[in-house]
Amino acid sequence: MTTYKAPLRDIRFLMNEVFHYPEHYKTLSNAENIDQDTVDMILEGAADYCENVLAPLYQTGDDEGCHFKDGVVTTPKGYKEAYEQFVQGGWQGLSYPEEFGGQDLPMSLNLIKSEMMGTANWSFTMYPGLSMGCMNTIMQFGTPEQKTTYMPHLVAGTWSGTMCLTEPQCGTDLGQVKTKAEPNADGSYDITGTKIFISAGEHDLTENIVHIVLARLPNAPQGTKGISLFIVPKFLPNTDGGVGERNAVNCGSIEHKMGIKASATAVLNFDQAKGFLIGEPNKGLHAMFTFMNTARIGTAVQGIAHAELSYQGSLPYAKQRMSMRALSGKKDPDKPADAIIHHADVRRMLLTQKAIAEGGRAMIYYAAQLADKMNDALKRGDQAEFEAYDDKLGFYTPILKGFLTELGFEAANHGMQVFGGHGYIKEWGMEQIVRDARISTLYEGTTGVQALDLIGRKVLLSSKGKIIRDYTAEILKFCGRHARNKYLRRFIWDLTKLCAQWNAITVRIFLAARKDRDVVSAASVDFLMFSGYVMMAYFWAQQAAIASEKIEAGDGAETIEFYKAKIKLADFYFDRILPRSQGHAESAVTPSKSLIGLPVEHFSFDY
Amino acid sequence: MTTYKAPLRDIRFLMNEVFHYPEHYKTLSNAENIDQDTVDMILEGAADYCENVLAPLYQTGDDEGCHFKDGVVTTPKGYKEAYEQFVQGGWQGLSYPEEFGGQDLPMSLNLIKSEMMGTANWSFTMYPGLSMGCMNTIMQFGTPEQKTTYMPHLVAGTWSGTMCLTEPQCGTDLGQVKTKAEPNADGSYDITGTKIFISAGEHDLTENIVHIVLARLPNAPQGTKGISLFIVPKFLPNTDGGVGERNAVNCGSIEHKMGIKASATAVLNFDQAKGFLIGEPNKGLHAMFTFMNTARIGTAVQGIAHAELSYQGSLPYAKQRMSMRALSGKKDPDKPADAIIHHADVRRMLLTQKAIAEGGRAMIYYAAQLADKMNDALKRGDQAEFEAYDDKLGFYTPILKGFLTELGFEAANHGMQVFGGHGYIKEWGMEQIVRDARISTLYEGTTGVQALDLIGRKVLLSSKGKIIRDYTAEILKFCGRHARNKYLRRFIWDLTKLCAQWNAITVRIFLAARKDRDVVSAASVDFLMFSGYVMMAYFWAQQAAIASEKIEAGDGAETIEFYKAKIKLADFYFDRILPRSQGHAESAVTPSKSLIGLPVEHFSFDY
Repeated sequence: MTTYKAPLRDIRFLMNEVFHYPEHYKTLSNAENIDQDTVDMILEGAADYCENVLAPLYQTGDDEGCHFKDGVVTTPKGYKEAYEQFVQGGWQGLSYPEEFGGQDLPMSLNLIKSEMMGTANWSFTMYPGLSMGCMNTIMQFGTPEQKTTYMPHLVAGTWSGTMCLTEPQCGTDLGQVKTKAEPNADGSYDITGTKIFISAGEHDLTENIVHIVLARLPNAPQGTKGISLFIVPKFLPNTDGGVGERNAVNCGSIEHKMGIKASATAVLNFDQAKGFLIGEPNKGLHAMFTFMNTARIGTAVQGIAHAELSYQGSLPYAKQRMSMRALSGKKDPDKPADAIIHHADVRRMLLTQKAIAEGGRAMIYYAAQLADKMNDALKRGDQAEFEAYDDKLGFYTPILKGFLTELGFEAANHGMQVFGGHGYIKEWGMEQIVRDARISTLYEGTTGVQALDLIGRKVLLSSKGKIIRDYTAEILKFCGRHARNKYLRRFIWDLTKLCAQWNAITVRIFLAARKDRDVVSAASVDFLMFSGYVMMAYFWAQQAAIASEKIEAGDGAETIEFYKAKIKLADFYFDRILPRSQGHAESAVTPSKSLIGLPVEHFSFDY
Repeated sequence: MTTYKAPLRDIRFLMNEVFHYPEHYKTLSNAENIDQDTVDMILEGAADYCENVLAPLYQTGDDEGCHFKDGVVTTPKGYKEAYEQFVQGGWQGLSYPEEFGGQDLPMSLNLIKSEMMGTANWSFTMYPGLSMGCMNTIMQFGTPEQKTTYMPHLVAGTWSGTMCLTEPQCGTDLGQVKTKAEPNADGSYDITGTKIFISAGEHDLTENIVHIVLARLPNAPQGTKGISLFIVPKFLPNTDGGVGERNAVNCGSIEHKMGIKASATAVLNFDQAKGFLIGEPNKGLHAMFTFMNTARIGTAVQGIAHAELSYQGSLPYAKQRMSMRALSGKKDPDKPADAIIHHADVRRMLLTQKAIAEGGRAMIYYAAQLADKMNDALKRGDQAEFEAYDDKLGFYTPILKGFLTELGFEAANHGMQVFGGHGYIKEWGMEQIVRDARISTLYEGTTGVQALDLIGRKVLLSSKGKIIRDYTAEILKFCGRHARNKYLRRFIWDLTKLCAQWNAITVRIFLAARKDRDVVSAASVDFLMFSGYVMMAYFWAQQAAIASEKIEAGDGAETIEFYKAKIKLADFYFDRILPRSQGHAESAVTPSKSLIGLPVEHFSFDY
């Protein structure tokens, strides 16, 4: 049975000591809302809710799953009550405007709340999570009337939202969307089509569900330039703002999935459902991209969530399960065998999980500050500043989403492996983490999609590699600043070499791609993974730098052990995880010949 | 819905062209039983049975699972009928002696049959698979009477067998076994204790189940030197050889598992069950080790089975699913998008699966010849020759089991990833392969156990690294022989460097371990994985060598494309998979400090 304890010590280390959140918050336009007491209250309140309400429903929700009957979806026992507490706590409105009933706090706090919630119970967190995409879309592109109609309910959490993109024939390639929107005389539209994989598409937690639907207007241009966005509520809003007539959107079924079983994934049939255009006609896909970065970083959180949960599950087992003797001599001489935490290989699995969770958390908490600044610019209507931060975030996004979800899945597998055969048994809860983690590399753009976004769009097309030059210059500046720090010496040395290598690989791919464009796709995932390992190394070095300052300053002597452990874990990362970057570096610069040279019919000979 | 087509072309390539099975079979003492027609009949008969009987039950068995009620286990619909066909086909007796009703064919043919069966339906294959451990034990250590009593039924498959090792408090560390054996006046023993994770421990496929149980005699020495083996049949045999009185061994429950759900994993309660000592008292664990290599190689097969099945599942999808355009230009210009097989990154995932399946198959088919020779020596009672081959096989075993199951799981995940979000949905069958594959790195010794066996026992303790020197010498001989083959040039060059590196790493670990024994465990899995990647590279080079000969000879022009594809896939392996060895090489020689230096209490600060 897994449990969850919010890692508040680590969260505060990152917020207060590494990334100086208090100073950061003062630079935002809603700074007056936020002081340390508020932050503490939110962190502790979220921790309490996650540990005591959400975590106990994690395994039971998986066992029971969601129920579907005659178009109605029922969530597992206890989910409705937990969601009511969520609404009562005002958690949905944390970083949404006061005018709609929210608390107007920075997005980063919301993300940290979501991390805790997602770690305690990812399936549950999907329901309020999907609402965010819907709210962001309405806030940014809705008419004043649309905002007044939907936002207060959504911000309160009494209504929820979805994003209806995928259809049976297309997911990544949304240019193939077929759902149709026919105009009505009253200015509304009749929406007809089938959407699949709609998370939170139907459920019993809220009184209404507001779908944001991608569809085509009559005579819209083909492909991605002919897609518009529509608001299609499950129940049409009444004139008094409440829930009115049932709309013609129906849940045809829910998917049977490998994991996240307490999250309902709906097939939605729109049968001349009434919809309302939101944003400009045919600009729907562009509008969707506005929140792409934050949505994907929200999914990147899943990587650290499952790494953390898996670590928390496997650590007590490793301390308590006894098997064989440590190679360096008995550690528990009075027991029939030593606890398995004394075996170096078991430590390797434990520390890999911990290094991924804490390293990834640092990456996300840094990106969350960029997201704060981006949102702040958006709120202030400063388009140029918005785009500048969006671009900056756009470099981190595919790395965080692609790399952290791959590593999160790996971590979950290590947690299970620590249990030996017991890890395969449902009761322990460890295999559920593996199954739940598995979706994270698939949705919100597969790892391959992230990788192509990174190397293709962000590195080669928009910047001809400049983005890597700039980023490595930033790392090298850090290296220069800490060159004489004895705790950091080996990190600095490794990072310096890796920065040179990162640029060299980029140039080689750039040159090769001129002659052979398939090289870009062929190299993409290796380039993404290489980038991720180097970036995480940089964030580990940053954590070690702060820890070493604290140790040297001698303050916080009672928690000095925390800082020592941070440096040790950074060491571990550089020793045992970072070397993988070299395999990716080598594969990334290999010509695409052995991938592309094989004719399709040579892929098989027997079948 | 997954299907299975036995890859007979590849199987025959390995048997006839790469490893010269026909010649090999002539060297065995049962050579007179085996000619090409027999082999063909067995391959084709097994393929037919696997494709048409077992494969269709793969997904339905997972959906339904096994049923448990009042100590009785019922297998999923169709399993009993499929097992009856298995018995009628005489498949269980393939490589067991004629005197017990078997066909006395080489073990390797049995392994190839098991590979096909396991690929079609791993859960099903567990039932007859477990009988083999039981049969081997009785054949080797049983009294003539025990053989007569049990072997004919087991060889026919009308009875099945199990190996009862694990108990709640111990799996790997069998020295902690507590199950007791109290002698009775009639020479039998009363067996009392609880065994868990007993695959095929209870089911409805056979009329009797013969358990081989690890237990302690009164006053037995503590630890591994006080364990004896007992035969404990579910039903005591009658004097007429049939099934008699029910024995006091009962199934307390079956486990709820992540996968292989059609395979019943039983908790068995022995409550003064009647047992019969087999082999010498207190030498039970030693006896178990006799068949350790073949049992573990049987599990290594799971790696290639799932890689193959996953490849077969994802290939047609990649040819048919259309998304985006290939970077090098439209490939299906008349379609709304190109088939995803035209994206280099999708090919990377497909070819990774194929390279693992075919590379791993080659490794196993080579090891199977060693197993044939080992068994032949055992049969002839030539203990010295048996031990020589057992030692040889003992080097391959941990690499095959540890490395191939890790890669099989990876391959299954690639297959699922090719499907994008659809991969997460049960109907497609791809996520089942991932769940089923996940057990393979846990049972029959975890990857960590294999790794410690390799570096600790096989490389350092027994041979001080000589085993690596010898093996790399063999590879270098191959390199020398093919140095002028234009198809193989880059393989030769890479292998030569890797051989030097393999020895260098071994020496460094050996020296470091003198001062710090934890280094051995710390380095173990990286050393195992490095060894696996190099060994698989060697087997890819061997396949490429044969393929190049065929191409040069110009014969078999109609299948020349098969050989070309082999060389391309070898290229792919060296380009895109083998480079990972470098990360493992680097981590393997890192001091254990960052793993062992962290005090246990520093593993967490919040919880």
